[in-house]
Amino acid sequence: MDEDALVSLRRELHRKPEPAWREFYTTARIVEELERFDLEALHVGPEALAGEHRMGVPDGAELAEWYDQATESGADPEILEALEGGYTGAVAVLECGEGPTVGLRVDIDGLPIEESEGKAHVPAAEGFRSEHEGAMHACGHDAHATVGIGVLEAIAESDFSGTLKLFFQPAEEVIGGGKAMAERGHLEDVEYLLAVHVGLDHPTGEIVAGIDGFLAVSHLEATFTGESAHAGASPEEGRNAIQALSTAVDNLYGIARHSDGATRVNVGVIEGGTAANIVAEQARLVAEVRGETTELMEYMRGRAETVLESAAGIHDCELTVEVGAQAPSAESDPELASIVGGVARGVDGVEGVLERDDLGGSEDATFLMREVQKNGGLACYVGVGTDHPGGHHTPTFDVDEATLAHGVAVLAGTIERLADRPV
Amino acid sequence: MDEDALVSLRRELHRKPEPAWREFYTTARIVEELERFDLEALHVGPEALAGEHRMGVPDGAELAEWYDQATESGADPEILEALEGGYTGAVAVLECGEGPTVGLRVDIDGLPIEESEGKAHVPAAEGFRSEHEGAMHACGHDAHATVGIGVLEAIAESDFSGTLKLFFQPAEEVIGGGKAMAERGHLEDVEYLLAVHVGLDHPTGEIVAGIDGFLAVSHLEATFTGESAHAGASPEEGRNAIQALSTAVDNLYGIARHSDGATRVNVGVIEGGTAANIVAEQARLVAEVRGETTELMEYMRGRAETVLESAAGIHDCELTVEVGAQAPSAESDPELASIVGGVARGVDGVEGVLERDDLGGSEDATFLMREVQKNGGLACYVGVGTDHPGGHHTPTFDVDEATLAHGVAVLAGTIERLADRPV
Amino acid sequence: MDEDALVSLRRELHRKPEPAWREFYTTARIVEELERFDLEALHVGPEALAGEHRMGVPDGAELAEWYDQATESGADPEILEALEGGYTGAVAVLECGEGPTVGLRVDIDGLPIEESEGKAHVPAAEGFRSEHEGAMHACGHDAHATVGIGVLEAIAESDFSGTLKLFFQPAEEVIGGGKAMAERGHLEDVEYLLAVHVGLDHPTGEIVAGIDGFLAVSHLEATFTGESAHAGASPEEGRNAIQALSTAVDNLYGIARHSDGATRVNVGVIEGGTAANIVAEQARLVAEVRGETTELMEYMRGRAETVLESAAGIHDCELTVEVGAQAPSAESDPELASIVGGVARGVDGVEGVLERDDLGGSEDATFLMREVQKNGGLACYVGVGTDHPGGHHTPTFDVDEATLAHGVAVLAGTIERLADRPV
Amino acid sequence: MDEDALVSLRRELHRKPEPAWREFYTTARIVEELERFDLEALHVGPEALAGEHRMGVPDGAELAEWYDQATESGADPEILEALEGGYTGAVAVLECGEGPTVGLRVDIDGLPIEESEGKAHVPAAEGFRSEHEGAMHACGHDAHATVGIGVLEAIAESDFSGTLKLFFQPAEEVIGGGKAMAERGHLEDVEYLLAVHVGLDHPTGEIVAGIDGFLAVSHLEATFTGESAHAGASPEEGRNAIQALSTAVDNLYGIARHSDGATRVNVGVIEGGTAANIVAEQARLVAEVRGETTELMEYMRGRAETVLESAAGIHDCELTVEVGAQAPSAESDPELASIVGGVARGVDGVEGVLERDDLGGSEDATFLMREVQKNGGLACYVGVGTDHPGGHHTPTFDVDEATLAHGVAVLAGTIERLADRPV
Repeated sequence: MDEDALVSLRRELHRKPEPAWREFYTTARIVEELERFDLEALHVGPEALAGEHRMGVPDGAELAEWYDQATESGADPEILEALEGGYTGAVAVLECGEGPTVGLRVDIDGLPIEESEGKAHVPAAEGFRSEHEGAMHACGHDAHATVGIGVLEAIAESDFSGTLKLFFQPAEEVIGGGKAMAERGHLEDVEYLLAVHVGLDHPTGEIVAGIDGFLAVSHLEATFTGESAHAGASPEEGRNAIQALSTAVDNLYGIARHSDGATRVNVGVIEGGTAANIVAEQARLVAEVRGETTELMEYMRGRAETVLESAAGIHDCELTVEVGAQAPSAESDPELASIVGGVARGVDGVEGVLERDDLGGSEDATFLMREVQKNGGLACYVGVGTDHPGGHHTPTFDVDEATLAHGVAVLAGTIERLADRPV
Repeated sequence: MDEDALVSLRRELHRKPEPAWREFYTTARIVEELERFDLEALHVGPEALAGEHRMGVPDGAELAEWYDQATESGADPEILEALEGGYTGAVAVLECGEGPTVGLRVDIDGLPIEESEGKAHVPAAEGFRSEHEGAMHACGHDAHATVGIGVLEAIAESDFSGTLKLFFQPAEEVIGGGKAMAERGHLEDVEYLLAVHVGLDHPTGEIVAGIDGFLAVSHLEATFTGESAHAGASPEEGRNAIQALSTAVDNLYGIARHSDGATRVNVGVIEGGTAANIVAEQARLVAEVRGETTELMEYMRGRAETVLESAAGIHDCELTVEVGAQAPSAESDPELASIVGGVARGVDGVEGVLERDDLGGSEDATFLMREVQKNGGLACYVGVGTDHPGGHHTPTFDVDEATLAHGVAVLAGTIERLADRPV
Repeated sequence: MDEDALVSLRRELHRKPEPAWREFYTTARIVEELERFDLEALHVGPEALAGEHRMGVPDGAELAEWYDQATESGADPEILEALEGGYTGAVAVLECGEGPTVGLRVDIDGLPIEESEGKAHVPAAEGFRSEHEGAMHACGHDAHATVGIGVLEAIAESDFSGTLKLFFQPAEEVIGGGKAMAERGHLEDVEYLLAVHVGLDHPTGEIVAGIDGFLAVSHLEATFTGESAHAGASPEEGRNAIQALSTAVDNLYGIARHSDGATRVNVGVIEGGTAANIVAEQARLVAEVRGETTELMEYMRGRAETVLESAAGIHDCELTVEVGAQAPSAESDPELASIVGGVARGVDGVEGVLERDDLGGSEDATFLMREVQKNGGLACYVGVGTDHPGGHHTPTFDVDEATLAHGVAVLAGTIERLADRPV
Repeated sequence: MDEDALVSLRRELHRKPEPAWREFYTTARIVEELERFDLEALHVGPEALAGEHRMGVPDGAELAEWYDQATESGADPEILEALEGGYTGAVAVLECGEGPTVGLRVDIDGLPIEESEGKAHVPAAEGFRSEHEGAMHACGHDAHATVGIGVLEAIAESDFSGTLKLFFQPAEEVIGGGKAMAERGHLEDVEYLLAVHVGLDHPTGEIVAGIDGFLAVSHLEATFTGESAHAGASPEEGRNAIQALSTAVDNLYGIARHSDGATRVNVGVIEGGTAANIVAEQARLVAEVRGETTELMEYMRGRAETVLESAAGIHDCELTVEVGAQAPSAESDPELASIVGGVARGVDGVEGVLERDDLGGSEDATFLMREVQKNGGLACYVGVGTDHPGGHHTPTFDVDEATLAHGVAVLAGTIERLADRPV
């Protein structure tokens, strides 16, 4: 694919962002592209994902709404059918003779963020802003999916000898799809795994050959159940779920920092109550905690659970906590990182190569990396710098499309090089 | 209407609770009943309500959903058409010769509460539980509407000489319809106004001839707007709207009690944020404050505004506050209350008459009462006791249907008596 | 005593305010005055108070400091000795022949408030501002003690036939002395009990013949004990008592208002921690809850205890709660109030008599009132209006000294009248 | 000094811990020791400290109390006189011929912590527990001062050729003395500066040759001033300083973590209000913020100021904030660290040498280190491992006295070695 084709595909995907497990249109569009190749295998639906390990799948009504929208947008009904029930994503296998099996993992989901309409925001200015109100590719996964297709094409057209497996992973943003993809079996024979992310505050022209410092993460969903009462006539009869939640929020953010390393906490979603004149019977929050190590994450989760329990107690509310999606930390293997770095230095447009960097965030690519490493393989998470005006997860995030080609060149180059590597 | 007919109509309405401004089915059903009578006039839609004074009308999508549901439930399309845009409720005028003009106001809206499915809950046990999930007649307005029809029929069949105007008012629960109905002009010639409420902790057989102590009330809707950020990678770049809201909730409930009398505050609805891993850009709360007098309510509102403003400031958020629906306090006129009491003492099944009682809540009937009193008329708010297992605004609220007849008899009897009253 | 003598005594006491149980100088000064009379008995120290019922007595070091100060101020060492250990206050018995036994209770303690130095503040302007920094007669008990002496003199010089018992009660402000005085036995033969308070927002010239509406009150002292840690090097090892306290404060003020009547809550004192760089091991709060009835006070106390317990739990702290001083509500007897009112109407300078009013605060005079009423006697709490520039318990509170004579005249007049009342 | 002499001096100092700027006895005792040597100069009082740069000096009454206590403990009155007004600490200059000028800085202050009385706590078991109730050497500064004397003696008795300056610095715990000592001029000619700390989670036998990772720190003292009111009679008239403080505490701990590195926040002291029944007019908190870099500390301070300002606003309180003591971060110079490491490896009892470690706390030794480095000199902060049962700043902290000799040997050895270093 030339640069124009990459840009065009990326923009198409950008227009149709779909949050976790709702990537119906996106998957169908990717599969259409995949069908251009002479693949050994193309896994979609339950063949691509270990169903029981999917985390954070929305309810049927929500899935149906996005499924219908994908249909209306012209997605191939036959493909869609295979994805029913939120089995989005795909695994493509390209065999090119003898040689190592190399995996490349890209994620494909969007975010529940309203995209900027500002003139300075290129997608708005150039007419490819999100058509799905309230959803946005605000983390570059549209670019990742595009790079994935680009790499596949480059390898298919190259002299590469070996097998390339491409993992189009859904639901990264909710730490929901990584484990399900890692556990489906397609990684068993993968000797080298690459994963990629654009941006991360690295400018266009910079490549990070080996990202570490993935924060371990755990999601928590807490529901406070009290008792409703007429707020004017008998406020004392209520057990106020909103007051309980509010006390919990104050104290979750107040969990003590830890001297062993970085921690994080965020209450990302709240909702509760039904009307101004009713003491709220129920309130719910969705939170996450992170730690530089799994231990630090668990410290945060332990403290968070205490906070939630006692905050409920202050207002005589019952509490249910669901510990949701979790991801471990992982390390990039230096040998593989070094190969990536070597290749990157020779790529047009690449002006700097960082040997390593910390992500400072979480990623469920770590499930796939650990799976490969457990089997004796090597893994490396690659950063492709791109000038991005707004931060990740903000309404003005965007990628410099010149960098799509960088990603393809670095990754495809590395894969080719691996075919020659003595085992 | 005999008791069976009253019970049957009440249960029919109970099955189809519709919250404020969405009483499409309810209004249509009431209008059907009204068409049985030889009315001088029947006002619906913009004829019944001063549109600009309606408060808390939901957006078009929400209205459309309930409108469609009413259509599907078999409501008369022609009537529905007149109600478009949330012009629910009706005013019926029955002329019966020379004499005073008497008004009766009943409210007709339901609440956003999920009705109990418990066996001990009569509507569930006897099969007339709400068919609208998440909505419920949890304050007896189904009974009020039924009593309204019952009184109309009783007067139509009586020797009453004068004019009866029946006000089926929508949106009482959001303090949204009273002012719009009071300002439409139909009260101008009303000399006596009666309003009615069942229950209020008074048992079956008890009548309260004159309720006072309406708490003045004001609704507030506050939106905190901060800035989203990736909660793992750059939490410091966020301006956290959920933390701002949470601080506001703590401090709203903490507004100092007032030595001049009763005050209330409630944050009834909260919502905010989009995903666990995004620092929330936006959060919203819906609250109400009340006071035993308008001054006390204004003290609460003033303090609430300060709290909201500064809570936003703590997290560098912008704040918008909409001061929503408000209702004043009002007093029942003793002369009219005394007539009600006299009539009540002679009604079958009535075992006790209280001269007066405090509501301890708010009501936008006060707009209608004050309008009539301003014109020199008399107003009286009448309580009809009914054993209710759960409190008002709770999932197990119910009315003792034996009391429907009490309400009809006391009100119709009073109206008849008024025809004979020397001016 | 003429007006000048009353003013002079009041100012002397005003200069030396002593908080609860520290009224050493004040008691000694009162006893000096009492020694002018031919008393049947003068009880001080453990004879005046049931020691085990004293509440809120400070520790020995604190008592010693105020004791020494009283000595330095020239208080009679012999009298002081009798008060050791915080047995302040006195009971004086004046026998004047056959007749009823009448009690008058006045309180004598000051408050821990820094008195205003403003020019508009009369005590500052006229040179009798508090000489005890941080303490102040900000509730008029200097006037009460003065009126007590004035009444004793007036009765001693009158034709009154009967017995007058004067109760100079300490520690009213901490609800600490009333029960101890009520339980000491001196009320057993008291047939009529009067108590008096100046001000209460009633202007000079107004007398309230019978105050009711005493809020029942309960004090709570909570200590949170966590674990200290170095705030920089190992914050996660701390269990933060200050965070626990802060969460408690938020939620104590957030206890739901009650539809049965007025409630109050206040956290009046906080302290905790030792240094900026140490996670606080300990924090303490002193709070009070009140209710229009004992039940309402108990509702507040029950909720407060839940809040404290769970707030401690959020931060893994231990909690100890001491439920401190409490006082019940009480009612003035109408028969006695009516006599007070009758007398008041004839007193020079009295321009208005209110039949009753609500205190809206708490008072441990209620212990004495209830004790007398239990024995079949009558009690009445009398308000003596006085223009006061600042509110009670504020740095600019002051009394209009013209009203000292009103108090003496109304109370002495009532006592004389009681001698003539047929039993 | 042999080990016994070191232990004996350390225990003597341990018995008399004195918090920041109150080290009267400690300084006098150190000066007594210093007088044993043939010093070129001995600076105490304003000669040792630049008065205007002292931070966190307590008020006169507090100073007087500790001064008197030192007198009573038998400190030399003549020395004490020189320290009046809180000019504690000392600078000793030992000249031993030609050669480099080397500085050694030790801190000498205790902490406001109540020392454990537990049997397992050696100072309690062996009878040298703190005699100053509420104060404790809980961070090992007693050991530091002792090591300082030990090093001086070792050098005086050695062949060292050059000048040794010993800085006995007061008020480290409040970040109060470092700048004042750094600015007094005695560092101008210092070519090498050593500083030392025991423990820090390093066991006996371990030496850290170069500690970095000092957190920059800033102290904040905030006073909220509202308005007092009677909590029962007119709560609405209060402007509640305790509620403001409590909201501030919640939100200070809730300041977002920063992706650039470690941050800290602690509210270490709170106090407010005067009585349970008075709405608190005033409340005060003492807090600190830290950051891995000065920028991070400033981020925290900026956010803290916003929180404080708006929290005051919620309750209509005025706010005054004093930004107190601050310290920058600093780095140990590798050349000097390497010399320390070389010496340490040859010291008896030293079993391991770490090349560097992070402090993870703050230290105002950084002022002295930066001053020397600014002048072209080298600085190194040395850790001397010691088994400590409880953590720093806890009631059971203690040092393994065997390590006193390690400290002396490593530091004296390094100083001797420096005399031979080619410039």
